Amino acid sequence: MKIKNQDFLKKENLILVLKLISDYGPISRAEISKQTKMSPTSASRIVALLSEKNLIEEVAMNHQNVGRKASYFDLNKNGIYFIGVELDNSYFRIGLMNFNEELIFKKTVALQKSFPDMVVKQLANEIYKLKKRFDLTDNQILGLCVGMPGIIEHKQGIVDFSVQLQWKNYPLADRLYEQLKIPIKVDNELKMKALSEYKFCDDSVKHLIILGFGSGVGSALISNGEISRGKSNFAGEIGHTIVDPNGAYCPCGNFGCMQTYIAEPFLLNEASKIKQVDSLEELLQEVEDGKVWAKNLISRAIQYASIAINNTVCSFNPDLVILSGSLIENHPYIQEELLKEYSATIWSPAANSFDVEITKTKDEGVVLGAAIQMKNHFIKNINL
Amino acid sequence: MKIKNQDFLKKENLILVLKLISDYGPISRAEISKQTKMSPTSASRIVALLSEKNLIEEVAMNHQNVGRKASYFDLNKNGIYFIGVELDNSYFRIGLMNFNEELIFKKTVALQKSFPDMVVKQLANEIYKLKKRFDLTDNQILGLCVGMPGIIEHKQGIVDFSVQLQWKNYPLADRLYEQLKIPIKVDNELKMKALSEYKFCDDSVKHLIILGFGSGVGSALISNGEISRGKSNFAGEIGHTIVDPNGAYCPCGNFGCMQTYIAEPFLLNEASKIKQVDSLEELLQEVEDGKVWAKNLISRAIQYASIAINNTVCSFNPDLVILSGSLIENHPYIQEELLKEYSATIWSPAANSFDVEITKTKDEGVVLGAAIQMKNHFIKNINL
Repeated sequence: MKIKNQDFLKKENLILVLKLISDYGPISRAEISKQTKMSPTSASRIVALLSEKNLIEEVAMNHQNVGRKASYFDLNKNGIYFIGVELDNSYFRIGLMNFNEELIFKKTVALQKSFPDMVVKQLANEIYKLKKRFDLTDNQILGLCVGMPGIIEHKQGIVDFSVQLQWKNYPLADRLYEQLKIPIKVDNELKMKALSEYKFCDDSVKHLIILGFGSGVGSALISNGEISRGKSNFAGEIGHTIVDPNGAYCPCGNFGCMQTYIAEPFLLNEASKIKQVDSLEELLQEVEDGKVWAKNLISRAIQYASIAINNTVCSFNPDLVILSGSLIENHPYIQEELLKEYSATIWSPAANSFDVEITKTKDEGVVLGAAIQMKNHFIKNINL
Repeated sequence: MKIKNQDFLKKENLILVLKLISDYGPISRAEISKQTKMSPTSASRIVALLSEKNLIEEVAMNHQNVGRKASYFDLNKNGIYFIGVELDNSYFRIGLMNFNEELIFKKTVALQKSFPDMVVKQLANEIYKLKKRFDLTDNQILGLCVGMPGIIEHKQGIVDFSVQLQWKNYPLADRLYEQLKIPIKVDNELKMKALSEYKFCDDSVKHLIILGFGSGVGSALISNGEISRGKSNFAGEIGHTIVDPNGAYCPCGNFGCMQTYIAEPFLLNEASKIKQVDSLEELLQEVEDGKVWAKNLISRAIQYASIAINNTVCSFNPDLVILSGSLIENHPYIQEELLKEYSATIWSPAANSFDVEITKTKDEGVVLGAAIQMKNHFIKNINL
């Protein structure tokens, strides 16, 4: 039994004013009051509170009109920050995002070792350097969010299980907090990337799904602005949906999981039956050289990627499907072929129900999305 | 830009009091005020409004305690009603539900003709009879909702496309309104059935998915009390997810759609290659008679139904999977075999993340869910 009381209303309105300033700032108190239909007193009270918390700042404005000077307010863009981190099995990326959701600094660092405690140390060390470089106090960093592959218990920030990093039940948020003493979140990388794609897509998009074709196959859905997580945050794990029960053996123990036909390690493993290739680049070189065996392998991957699009469209009925992952982002041939081929595989009543786009955020996506997730979390839990 | 104002708050609290009375009535004004943390004045005002609208009634209570007599309020159970309808290609079912979500009358009627205008007439005629039988005025019927197979534009109540009824772009809600002059909704049948299953499941269930194995294959997800619809209300249409690209030809034009391995008409069509059987009963009789060909066919259906469970669990991460549809509800053999077999097919990290149950609402499910949907719609749009 949850009663919507005055406190709830106050918080909702605080968030509303913050969003208004975020979207339309610099903006005056009078305009805030007009747009939100709040009384001038309420609007002024909220503006004062947000200023006090250092979230907005008064800005100088030049006016052509003569008359009483109004105060204008904008986000405190360069006073407070959120840190987004992308963690993979061989590197991590750090991004420093201002309150206006702009990445003002990015860095990629090779992972020295992938043991969890070592990763925490190395990452913390980079954050210390970042703070020093930008002369940031702890009060200016409102939180850090890590996006990484695997099943992540996002409420506590525990890595339940990550095949890529070979971690299990690791309390990453707690360990990072011990080092950094700032709010920490941990979440699934593709869900984070979906957030940053959502930021850049048209306002009319209500149900966005991102597909990732890379070292594995996955998806993430944002529906009416909310990440679809399901019970334990693995909604979208389509890599282990079965698309051919008599198909290839998957390390999970099932036959014909989606990822076995598309993901990079599986393609290289198949290729090795014919010729040792060490990367997708090498495999695609074979295609370019006219090798039929290589063409067959890539064509099959594209066929199954089309099936992935069809199956997610039937399951989730999105208005926008975004294609991402190393296969798409690094290999124009695969991207082009998939865009040419997929429509023949879509269930006909669904054919015109969605658009397909290539990721706009590319290798910034996870870092930016993680920082946005931290910002959203901060705003949702803002203290009155 | 949506401002949460006093009107919003008033409506939220009105709904809150209505739900409290619905769940805990008969209940006194004092208890309402205590439970909702509203002032006694506010609680009394809302109670007066709900009484005026005929939604609640004062009830007599016997008390052992001597003292000042308090007034108790309960839902006006038998004063107002919602009608749920299940429409299929050979019959429709009507259910009359009171405000307490109890079906007080049910009737199944064979469809004379499946042309849309004829169905509207026949259905309207049955509703007139129902009103007469229970001596109901239009004011007492707060709405009617039809649940039916197909892709339904639920906001306008237009049947975009129904294979089963062979309808296309039919404005069913408008046509029924012309006859009945009461609020009308139209929605997908499995989504309605999911609502009634949700009513009966444990409070801890946040993400419920229902699978339907019958004349087609489909699913519907309820997440945090809301039906997942996607952009155009076909989210959950897993019957056309591809589970074997080299598989059976589907009338949709693709190969290896999920439904081709499980749905009743496909099983009978496959069986006819060996022996003409006219029903699943006859096919299962062949299994019982030890016919290997029949056993193979049913075993394959069970294997693919297991894949349907795995694929929806990976995609949606539900806490509860409910199995329904004629294959499950009418054929204990299939039900038992599926319950025995499915777990071997589940992606191991997901194995303990969900429960599987058999539908509790059976052939009442769509009718009851449709009536509940109408009730929810009425409450959400209640006038202050």
